[in-house]
Amino acid sequence: MEYKKGLHIVCDLEDASEDALCNMDGFKTLVEGLILKHQLQSTGSVYHHFELKGYTAVVGLTESHLSVHTWPEFGRVTYDIFLSNFLQVNDSVCEHISKEIQTFFGGKVSQIHKLSR
Amino acid sequence: MEYKKGLHIVCDLEDASEDALCNMDGFKTLVEGLILKHQLQSTGSVYHHFELKGYTAVVGLTESHLSVHTWPEFGRVTYDIFLSNFLQVNDSVCEHISKEIQTFFGGKVSQIHKLSR
Repeated sequence: MEYKKGLHIVCDLEDASEDALCNMDGFKTLVEGLILKHQLQSTGSVYHHFELKGYTAVVGLTESHLSVHTWPEFGRVTYDIFLSNFLQVNDSVCEHISKEIQTFFGGKVSQIHKLSR
Repeated sequence: MEYKKGLHIVCDLEDASEDALCNMDGFKTLVEGLILKHQLQSTGSVYHHFELKGYTAVVGLTESHLSVHTWPEFGRVTYDIFLSNFLQVNDSVCEHISKEIQTFFGGKVSQIHKLSR
Protein backbone atom coordinates (compact mmCIF):
# COMPACT_ATOMS: atom_id res chain seq x y z
CA MET A 1 0.00 0.00 0.00
CA GLU A 2 1.31 3.42 -0.85
CA TYR A 3 0.54 6.83 0.58
CA LYS A 4 -2.11 8.71 -1.38
CA LYS A 5 -1.92 12.46 -1.09
CA GLY A 6 -5.07 14.27 -0.04
CA LEU A 7 -6.34 17.75 -0.86
CA HIS A 8 -5.88 20.67 1.54
CA ILE A 9 -7.79 23.83 0.63
CA VAL A 10 -6.65 26.97 2.43
CA CYS A 11 -8.84 29.99 1.75
CA ASP A 12 -9.47 33.57 2.90
CA LEU A 13 -12.65 35.53 2.23
CA GLU A 14 -13.19 39.27 2.51
CA ASP A 15 -16.35 41.42 2.49
CA ALA A 16 -18.09 38.46 4.15
CA SER A 17 -21.51 38.62 5.82
CA GLU A 18 -21.28 40.11 9.30
CA ASP A 19 -24.16 37.90 10.40
CA ALA A 20 -22.30 34.77 9.32
CA LEU A 21 -19.03 35.97 10.84
CA CYS A 22 -20.82 36.22 14.21
CA ASN A 23 -23.06 33.17 13.84
CA MET A 24 -21.02 30.39 15.41
CA ASP A 25 -24.06 28.19 16.02
CA GLY A 26 -25.03 28.47 12.36
CA PHE A 27 -21.53 27.52 11.25
CA LYS A 28 -21.48 24.57 13.62
CA THR A 29 -24.81 23.36 12.23
CA LEU A 30 -23.45 23.68 8.68
CA VAL A 31 -20.30 21.70 9.47
CA GLU A 32 -22.13 18.98 11.38
CA GLY A 33 -24.51 18.60 8.44
CA LEU A 34 -21.63 18.36 5.97
CA ILE A 35 -19.88 15.73 8.09
CA LEU A 36 -23.05 13.65 8.14
CA LYS A 37 -23.80 14.19 4.45
CA HIS A 38 -20.36 13.07 3.35
CA GLN A 39 -20.03 10.32 5.96
CA LEU A 40 -16.88 11.82 7.44
CA GLN A 41 -15.92 10.92 10.99
CA SER A 42 -15.36 13.63 13.57
CA THR A 43 -12.81 12.92 16.29
CA GLY A 44 -14.07 15.95 18.21
CA SER A 45 -14.23 19.71 17.85
CA VAL A 46 -13.46 22.93 19.68
CA TYR A 47 -15.62 26.02 19.14
CA HIS A 48 -14.70 29.29 20.82
CA HIS A 49 -16.53 32.61 20.76
CA PHE A 50 -14.48 35.79 21.23
CA GLU A 51 -15.72 38.76 23.23
CA LEU A 52 -15.30 40.85 20.08
CA LYS A 53 -18.05 38.90 18.24
CA GLY A 54 -15.86 36.63 16.11
CA TYR A 55 -15.31 32.94 16.64
CA THR A 56 -12.80 30.22 15.93
CA ALA A 57 -13.21 26.49 15.52
CA VAL A 58 -11.15 23.41 14.83
CA VAL A 59 -12.78 20.13 13.90
CA GLY A 60 -10.76 16.93 14.00
CA LEU A 61 -11.68 14.30 11.42
CA THR A 62 -10.30 10.81 10.98
CA GLU A 63 -9.75 12.12 7.42
CA SER A 64 -7.77 15.17 8.74
CA HIS A 65 -9.32 18.49 9.86
CA LEU A 66 -11.24 21.68 9.25
CA SER A 67 -10.65 25.08 10.83
CA VAL A 68 -12.26 28.52 10.72
CA HIS A 69 -11.32 31.89 12.20
CA THR A 70 -13.67 34.84 11.72
CA TRP A 71 -12.92 38.56 11.97
CA PRO A 72 -16.25 40.45 11.89
CA GLU A 73 -14.47 43.74 12.59
CA PHE A 74 -12.65 43.34 9.26
CA GLY A 75 -15.32 41.44 7.29
CA ARG A 76 -12.87 38.55 6.95
CA VAL A 77 -12.68 34.82 7.52
CA THR A 78 -9.84 32.35 7.10
CA TYR A 79 -10.66 28.66 6.81
CA ASP A 80 -9.04 25.46 5.74
CA ILE A 81 -10.23 21.96 5.02
CA PHE A 82 -7.91 18.99 4.61
CA LEU A 83 -9.17 15.51 3.69
CA SER A 84 -6.86 12.58 3.16
CA ASN A 85 -7.49 10.04 0.44
CA PHE A 86 -6.44 7.06 2.52
CA LEU A 87 -9.62 4.98 2.47
CA GLN A 88 -11.41 6.73 -0.39
CA VAL A 89 -10.77 9.65 -2.73
CA ASN A 90 -12.17 12.72 -0.98
CA ASP A 91 -11.04 15.50 -3.34
CA SER A 92 -14.52 16.31 -4.61
CA VAL A 93 -15.91 16.23 -1.06
CA CYS A 94 -13.19 18.66 0.00
CA GLU A 95 -14.09 21.00 -2.87
CA HIS A 96 -17.78 20.72 -2.04
CA ILE A 97 -17.29 21.57 1.63
CA SER A 98 -15.10 24.52 0.67
CA LYS A 99 -17.83 25.85 -1.63
CA GLU A 100 -20.48 25.40 1.07
CA ILE A 101 -18.36 27.39 3.52
CA GLN A 102 -17.92 30.13 0.92
CA THR A 103 -21.68 30.21 0.37
CA PHE A 104 -22.29 30.43 4.12
CA PHE A 105 -20.02 33.46 4.53
CA GLY A 106 -20.56 35.19 1.21
CA GLY A 107 -18.06 37.88 0.20
CA LYS A 108 -15.22 37.12 -2.18
CA VAL A 109 -12.14 34.95 -2.18
CA SER A 110 -9.05 37.04 -1.48
CA GLN A 111 -6.71 34.03 -1.70
CA ILE A 112 -7.04 30.31 -2.11
CA HIS A 113 -4.42 27.55 -2.14
CA LYS A 114 -5.07 23.94 -3.07
CA LEU A 115 -2.27 21.79 -1.72
CA SER A 116 -1.70 18.13 -2.56
CA ARG A 117 -0.25 16.52 0.55
CA MET B 1 -7.26 49.38 13.29
CA GLU B 2 -6.43 47.32 10.25
CA TYR B 3 -6.19 43.59 9.73
CA LYS B 4 -2.63 42.27 10.10
CA LYS B 5 -1.96 39.07 8.23
CA GLY B 6 -0.50 36.19 10.20
CA LEU B 7 1.81 33.38 9.17
CA HIS B 8 0.49 29.91 8.32
CA ILE B 9 3.15 27.22 7.90
CA VAL B 10 1.95 24.03 6.19
CA CYS B 11 4.54 21.28 6.13
CA ASP B 12 4.98 17.58 5.34
CA LEU B 13 7.84 15.42 6.59
CA GLU B 14 8.96 12.05 5.29
CA ASP B 15 11.33 9.41 6.69
CA ALA B 16 10.24 10.57 10.14
CA SER B 17 10.93 8.68 13.37
CA GLU B 18 8.49 5.82 13.86
CA ASP B 19 8.67 6.33 17.61
CA ALA B 20 7.60 9.96 17.27
CA LEU B 21 4.90 9.11 14.73
CA CYS B 22 3.36 6.77 17.34
CA ASN B 23 4.08 8.86 20.42
CA MET B 24 0.94 10.95 20.82
CA ASP B 25 1.60 11.65 24.50
CA GLY B 26 5.07 12.94 23.67
CA PHE B 27 3.69 15.22 20.96
CA LYS B 28 1.02 16.52 23.32
CA THR B 29 3.66 17.30 25.95
CA LEU B 30 5.72 19.13 23.32
CA VAL B 31 2.78 21.24 22.17
CA GLU B 32 1.61 22.06 25.66
CA GLY B 33 5.14 23.16 26.54
CA LEU B 34 5.35 25.37 23.43
CA ILE B 35 1.99 26.98 24.21
CA LEU B 36 3.19 27.82 27.72
CA LYS B 37 6.63 28.97 26.57
CA HIS B 38 5.22 31.38 24.00
CA GLN B 39 2.26 32.47 26.13
CA LEU B 40 -0.26 31.36 23.54
CA GLN B 41 -3.81 30.60 24.63
CA SER B 42 -5.39 27.26 23.90
CA THR B 43 -9.15 27.21 23.34
CA GLY B 44 -9.12 23.41 23.60
CA SER B 45 -7.72 20.44 21.75
CA VAL B 46 -8.69 17.09 20.29
CA TYR B 47 -6.20 14.21 20.24
CA HIS B 48 -7.14 10.94 18.58
CA HIS B 49 -5.14 7.70 18.37
CA PHE B 50 -5.81 5.40 15.41
CA GLU B 51 -5.83 1.64 15.74
CA LEU B 52 -3.06 1.57 13.12
CA LYS B 53 -0.59 3.32 15.48
CA GLY B 54 -0.84 6.84 14.03
CA TYR B 55 -2.55 9.80 15.63
CA THR B 56 -4.16 13.07 14.72
CA ALA B 57 -4.63 16.25 16.70
CA VAL B 58 -6.10 19.70 16.33
CA VAL B 59 -5.36 22.42 18.84
CA GLY B 60 -7.46 25.58 18.88
CA LEU B 61 -5.63 28.76 19.85
CA THR B 62 -7.02 32.25 20.33
CA GLU B 63 -4.21 33.06 17.84
CA SER B 64 -5.53 30.42 15.34
CA HIS B 65 -4.62 26.71 15.35
CA LEU B 66 -2.19 23.83 15.05
CA SER B 67 -2.83 20.41 13.54
CA VAL B 68 -0.90 17.19 13.07
CA HIS B 69 -1.65 13.92 11.27
CA THR B 70 0.86 11.07 11.48
CA TRP B 71 1.26 8.05 9.17
CA PRO B 72 3.73 5.64 10.81
CA GLU B 73 3.06 3.06 8.08
CA PHE B 74 4.50 5.52 5.55
CA GLY B 75 7.02 7.33 7.77
CA ARG B 76 5.13 10.55 7.15
CA VAL B 77 3.55 13.41 9.05
CA THR B 78 1.59 16.43 7.88
CA TYR B 79 1.29 19.41 10.21
CA ASP B 80 0.31 23.04 10.09
CA ILE B 81 0.61 25.96 12.45
CA PHE B 82 -1.20 29.25 11.94
CA LEU B 83 -0.71 32.24 14.25
CA SER B 84 -2.42 35.54 13.68
CA ASN B 85 -0.64 38.82 14.33
CA PHE B 86 -3.67 40.54 15.81
CA LEU B 87 -2.38 41.42 19.28
CA GLN B 88 1.33 40.88 18.69
CA VAL B 89 3.58 39.79 15.81
CA ASN B 90 3.86 36.01 16.11
CA ASP B 91 5.79 35.17 12.93
CA SER B 92 8.98 34.19 14.73
CA VAL B 93 6.98 32.13 17.26
CA CYS B 94 5.28 30.34 14.38
CA GLU B 95 8.66 29.56 12.79
CA HIS B 96 10.04 28.37 16.12
CA ILE B 97 7.14 26.02 16.78
CA SER B 98 7.43 24.63 13.26
CA LYS B 99 11.14 23.91 13.82
CA GLU B 100 10.42 22.25 17.16
CA ILE B 101 7.86 19.97 15.51
CA GLN B 102 10.38 19.09 12.81
CA THR B 103 12.98 18.27 15.46
CA PHE B 104 10.46 16.09 17.32
CA PHE B 105 9.67 14.00 14.23
CA GLY B 106 13.04 14.03 12.49
CA GLY B 107 13.13 12.98 8.83
CA LYS B 108 13.16 15.54 6.05
CA VAL B 109 10.82 18.19 4.71
CA SER B 110 9.07 16.96 1.58
CA GLN B 111 7.13 20.20 1.14
CA ILE B 112 6.60 23.41 3.07
CA HIS B 113 4.39 26.41 2.36
CA LYS B 114 4.51 29.69 4.25
CA LEU B 115 1.28 31.57 3.68
CA SER B 116 0.61 35.16 4.71
CA ARG B 117 -3.07 35.35 5.61
